[in-house]
Amino acid sequence: MVNDLMNVIDFDACGLDMHRMASKLFPICRSITGDGLRKTLAIIAREIPLQITEVPSGTRVFDWIVPREWNIRGAWIKDSSGRRIVDFADTNLHVVGYSTPVDATVSLAELEKHLYSLPSQPDAVPYITSYYEERWGFCLTHRCRQELADGDYHVFIDSDLSEGSLTYGEVLIPGETRDEIFLSTYVCHPSMANNELSGPVVATYLVKWLLTRPRRYSYRVIFVPETIGSLTYLSRNLDSMRRHVVAGFNLTCLGDGRAYSFLPSRNGDTLADRVALNVLRHEHPEFIQYTFLDRGSDERQYCSPGVDLPVVSVMRSKYGAYPEYHTSLDDLNLVTPAGLQGGFDVVRMCLDLLENNYFFRTTCLGEPQLGRRGLYPTLSTRESSQQVQEMMNLLAFADGTADLIEISNCIGVPARRLHSLAQTLGAAGLLTAVSG
Amino acid sequence: MVNDLMNVIDFDACGLDMHRMASKLFPICRSITGDGLRKTLAIIAREIPLQITEVPSGTRVFDWIVPREWNIRGAWIKDSSGRRIVDFADTNLHVVGYSTPVDATVSLAELEKHLYSLPSQPDAVPYITSYYEERWGFCLTHRCRQELADGDYHVFIDSDLSEGSLTYGEVLIPGETRDEIFLSTYVCHPSMANNELSGPVVATYLVKWLLTRPRRYSYRVIFVPETIGSLTYLSRNLDSMRRHVVAGFNLTCLGDGRAYSFLPSRNGDTLADRVALNVLRHEHPEFIQYTFLDRGSDERQYCSPGVDLPVVSVMRSKYGAYPEYHTSLDDLNLVTPAGLQGGFDVVRMCLDLLENNYFFRTTCLGEPQLGRRGLYPTLSTRESSQQVQEMMNLLAFADGTADLIEISNCIGVPARRLHSLAQTLGAAGLLTAVSG
Amino acid sequence: MVNDLMNVIDFDACGLDMHRMASKLFPICRSITGDGLRKTLAIIAREIPLQITEVPSGTRVFDWIVPREWNIRGAWIKDSSGRRIVDFADTNLHVVGYSTPVDATVSLAELEKHLYSLPSQPDAVPYITSYYEERWGFCLTHRCRQELADGDYHVFIDSDLSEGSLTYGEVLIPGETRDEIFLSTYVCHPSMANNELSGPVVATYLVKWLLTRPRRYSYRVIFVPETIGSLTYLSRNLDSMRRHVVAGFNLTCLGDGRAYSFLPSRNGDTLADRVALNVLRHEHPEFIQYTFLDRGSDERQYCSPGVDLPVVSVMRSKYGAYPEYHTSLDDLNLVTPAGLQGGFDVVRMCLDLLENNYFFRTTCLGEPQLGRRGLYPTLSTRESSQQVQEMMNLLAFADGTADLIEISNCIGVPARRLHSLAQTLGAAGLLTAVSG
Repeated sequence: MVNDLMNVIDFDACGLDMHRMASKLFPICRSITGDGLRKTLAIIAREIPLQITEVPSGTRVFDWIVPREWNIRGAWIKDSSGRRIVDFADTNLHVVGYSTPVDATVSLAELEKHLYSLPSQPDAVPYITSYYEERWGFCLTHRCRQELADGDYHVFIDSDLSEGSLTYGEVLIPGETRDEIFLSTYVCHPSMANNELSGPVVATYLVKWLLTRPRRYSYRVIFVPETIGSLTYLSRNLDSMRRHVVAGFNLTCLGDGRAYSFLPSRNGDTLADRVALNVLRHEHPEFIQYTFLDRGSDERQYCSPGVDLPVVSVMRSKYGAYPEYHTSLDDLNLVTPAGLQGGFDVVRMCLDLLENNYFFRTTCLGEPQLGRRGLYPTLSTRESSQQVQEMMNLLAFADGTADLIEISNCIGVPARRLHSLAQTLGAAGLLTAVSG
Repeated sequence: MVNDLMNVIDFDACGLDMHRMASKLFPICRSITGDGLRKTLAIIAREIPLQITEVPSGTRVFDWIVPREWNIRGAWIKDSSGRRIVDFADTNLHVVGYSTPVDATVSLAELEKHLYSLPSQPDAVPYITSYYEERWGFCLTHRCRQELADGDYHVFIDSDLSEGSLTYGEVLIPGETRDEIFLSTYVCHPSMANNELSGPVVATYLVKWLLTRPRRYSYRVIFVPETIGSLTYLSRNLDSMRRHVVAGFNLTCLGDGRAYSFLPSRNGDTLADRVALNVLRHEHPEFIQYTFLDRGSDERQYCSPGVDLPVVSVMRSKYGAYPEYHTSLDDLNLVTPAGLQGGFDVVRMCLDLLENNYFFRTTCLGEPQLGRRGLYPTLSTRESSQQVQEMMNLLAFADGTADLIEISNCIGVPARRLHSLAQTLGAAGLLTAVSG
Repeated sequence: MVNDLMNVIDFDACGLDMHRMASKLFPICRSITGDGLRKTLAIIAREIPLQITEVPSGTRVFDWIVPREWNIRGAWIKDSSGRRIVDFADTNLHVVGYSTPVDATVSLAELEKHLYSLPSQPDAVPYITSYYEERWGFCLTHRCRQELADGDYHVFIDSDLSEGSLTYGEVLIPGETRDEIFLSTYVCHPSMANNELSGPVVATYLVKWLLTRPRRYSYRVIFVPETIGSLTYLSRNLDSMRRHVVAGFNLTCLGDGRAYSFLPSRNGDTLADRVALNVLRHEHPEFIQYTFLDRGSDERQYCSPGVDLPVVSVMRSKYGAYPEYHTSLDDLNLVTPAGLQGGFDVVRMCLDLLENNYFFRTTCLGEPQLGRRGLYPTLSTRESSQQVQEMMNLLAFADGTADLIEISNCIGVPARRLHSLAQTLGAAGLLTAVSG
């Protein structure tokens, strides 16, 4: 962490730093409100200039109402011998999220109505919540559940649901223009790593990286509880966001090493879609292409009719599409430093491309004479180098109507290599960036 | 027919009724003019409020002229022994349509010039006409023809071609709006069942069904002789039809049980095309897709340049594409009650979808909270029901620019299930129909 | 050549004439300037009314400058025994184009720096130039090069680079309208046949053919040195060409018999693209489709941003895509009379289609009654002839918004057959040509 303290992070090798940060956040019992959420945001605020907002319970947000705040201190099930067979202290997944308090002795038959396990994954504790209907419940491995003997059980949940607030954090990073790139991640899941901690740690490191570099765009980065948090944020910022946001990314599931995945915006043709697809096709051509029908995170709000923000998701293994999803198996063995680095890199390349994505126009009619500028072999042979060909192709398509992404798509050269060629040609006075 | 008399038809099981009606019409010798056509329309007029129009021979219709009226009372070929080897009384297909009268004794060599048979289908009597050039002729099985011995034959056709009129029928059914759905079928073929009687009987039962239900659209249903009849009708109604018709269907070949088929409009992208393709893709995904180049019925007129009506054909086995087509084998064994019911149902679903095809818009920003309306499971698990997902997808695409068909195409859910979900969401105040 | 003198060429069988003309031009040492180029244009000017233009060295053309003029009289390498091991008199490919004069004795090691050969094609002399950087060099077979013994060599090139001019030729053929078809070919390569002599000889015979026929379009045909010549021509004619040129063809590689090839314009959707693709798909469906990324001739200038002329290349074996390209093996055995005839024919068909490519509209509503015009069988049978069907399809799509090419593409009938049907229907008063 020396680098970190000295503020000189090697962003090409920050996977371990991100993994350590995820480890710090892992044990906290987050939910869509409450002290676990606050504590998480406080830890993030030590890393980046996070601004915290509290929105009172009962506040109307579009069709929804901010719920009462939930906090929990402990919970267990004891068998008739007094042995704790399930304990919140072992993993906070053991309690159904938003469980009401309970302290009672119940028969096994009664207890069973409040238990959740996965027969197909007998060693996994599932993740279950009940935000909008009051109930209590415990989640446990199916193996443990099957060993429960007849008899009475003492169930105890030390929680409360009370007027309070929903907490979220945001970072606004100014750039040369007021046009904004929007990054959103969520912080409402208890001890799970790919979905969710990979999201906030990659977001945190993207903010650190953005702060070190010149920025054409302004950046709006938010850390919110999923669904109710994104709705709350939208309800307070929609006008400004609709005016300024040119591209957005929902940051989730960025930490395992098994796949790259893409989920488009509703219309599928926004700048964010074009950027993400260009990067993925060149950098990870084996990526999994989902459709908007496979959505399941905050793009559900960002892309809803009337909101219509250009938000996509670039992910590693997508929520719902890997076996450990929403169970205790989604842990910090599944998420690795290399996996996080890969997730960080692919989003960073998207942001880089956005920053570099200008429309280009040649400065002369016909092909320029690259030779007298030292950019072309002076001897004609049957082969001309790949770079010369790429330069000629860039010039051939630089008619002022195509941006870097479109030229890249036309000529099959990665946008970031084109960006470097465009700089060479710009320095030679042969190419200018124009507004599209 | 008790149901029919009491006017309470079960339209989900009216195949047998339609088959009986076809049986009544089958023996009549129809042509593009004449008493057989009149008698056919009179039988239909007993079932539905058909308005009959007579258009005099010699009337100019676009590039055509209504021909003289043709009637026939009998016809036969006798061999030298006086035996009737071909008799119109057996099947009216035996005489070439529009044959001039003849009463002569001819040699076999001379007779052969007036005979038509099918070597490849030796037991079938082909269907042949000569509307616009005077000739006489007989159609017979190839087997029969091959048995003809040398010698003289007495040929006799008791027909006449004289000034008269072309007859057609129409039903105009008013709806809430003046926008019209157009249904066209033809009534000019003698004893053949799939092409043609399936068309007029399905049209008749569609009219019965339409009369029992509220209608957003008005309906224009016509029973005309093919080509000259549709041209005649167009020449008298084109302005009004171009103003009002939003979708049309040419009703033909709707009675066998072997296939579903689709023939698009010339441009292929009209409302009629979209409706028919949506219904067929979901209800009969194995349907045969033809192109406009495969056309051969009255869409040739309805989709011609300058007419440009949005007319498609949804069929069972398409004319020209089944071996019995235009022969005596196209009979009431080929056309079955179940075949007719299937043909009726698929067109009825198209009309239903047209009636239900509104543009939809959500009433709130972001996703609505379905949970507090009892439309969403209160407990989050890894799976949400198919219906919830379909509702969420409907809401996600209900941005006011997409009609039910487009939403159905986007989310892969049959339009009629979407219609029912839209009603549920509408009742919950979450969705409204808007004009597109 | 009797036919030629009498000015009655059989353009369906002029391959041998073209091959003889190529033979006359073959030995001349052409380059992008100089007397070889002038002599070539003079020979062409004996065949067609070619107008010659000289553009002085030093003239600025867009980003380029017309280079000094290069002329060469002789060149050789002698070994220490005085034997000429390489001699310009054997083939002009032996000298690197634009070689500066030299007369020196050099060691083998020094000589090697100035030698070019192809290890993979040991019997071929490669074609090498150095227009914009002064050097001298010799090209030879790799076999010959490998036999060079240690020792001194006498190298001699009797050339000069001096102020002079760049020469090009053009033919302007007026037509009924000022709209122009543009044909461009190049005349700057020494003794090579497919790339390049097939281009100028086919261009010459196209001009002869155009002069014999009525012309809706005007034609602009140019014979220029590649790159610097097309840039020079553009720099003097761009405004007029942008106003008038509706379609253009770069004529190159039209003489071998192995393939047909197509290289589109930058945007790929110009009239020239549509014409060429229609012709090739029907006449040579096995043609090789290249993309604009495979370009390599003067379309690089004609399709550059800001120039944007609708120019494509219809070729036999494309430059760079056959093994003999840019070597001494690209000779008059590779290029054959039949190969040249095929190249001539395919371009001629493109020009024919352009001349005949009108928008068509039917003159009546509904289908016309072809029968009473003798264009339709009077007896209905199950089959109607292919020609009737093609006529009906032509009429069905002749709505005034589609040109002959689009109708051909819609109905799958070669445009030239459609043209003939359109004439029949036009003569019958059923179809008129309209402006699109």
